[in-house]
Amino acid sequence: MRAARGPEADPPGATVFIGLKPTMTYVFQVVTQINSGSPEVVVRARGNAIAKAVDVVEVVRRRFLEGQVELGSIAISTERLVNRDGRDANVSAIAIPIRRVGPPPGAPATGTRPPPAAGPPSP
Amino acid sequence: MRAARGPEADPPGATVFIGLKPTMTYVFQVVTQINSGSPEVVVRARGNAIAKAVDVVEVVRRRFLEGQVELGSIAISTERLVNRDGRDANVSAIAIPIRRVGPPPGAPATGTRPPPAAGPPSP
Repeated sequence: MRAARGPEADPPGATVFIGLKPTMTYVFQVVTQINSGSPEVVVRARGNAIAKAVDVVEVVRRRFLEGQVELGSIAISTERLVNRDGRDANVSAIAIPIRRVGPPPGAPATGTRPPPAAGPPSP
Repeated sequence: MRAARGPEADPPGATVFIGLKPTMTYVFQVVTQINSGSPEVVVRARGNAIAKAVDVVEVVRRRFLEGQVELGSIAISTERLVNRDGRDANVSAIAIPIRRVGPPPGAPATGTRPPPAAGPPSP
């Protein structure tokens, strides 16, 4: 369980940036991340790719991982970039967190370490 | 103050649908709504217009109404449409609520009715 959940606190590998590849490429990246044990994947996009990011999240949660994930709080922002002419340009961005609901698939041990000793069960 | 805030409970005129017009057209629609007293405007878009919807909201809240509005919970969804060939097509959609923070601008009386009698102030 992580205490910090802000964009700056993403665990490594848990972000999928949406670019020019086909939608399904990113869908499979997200599904693979979730199925390999990531509790949360943040789908991020800028500019025109924002619409594709929403497509990716909708396909993941309605077709591939239905009932297994939920969305976190969607954030939009403005990023200041320097374009090819060397001038500043503002571009909109979106971040959509997808969280796994319930235990990991098949609940396999993902490492070689034994699980930590459990405390006494609460009735 | 409205009790219901869901998408189905939008007050009339408080939704701005993003389409093919220039971004600033929709920016001015939103600013006009907020400045005319709407406590909340929901910016909605489907498909490729989703990126423009995010642009509109970012321009409104960072340039025109800075410090005067805040965003509500952003929702994404899938809508089933019938395209020109008569076949079903899924299209992603977004809804971004923008709420005025604080009293209406200039706080003019918007109607001719007197304000309701206030109850005793709670300490």
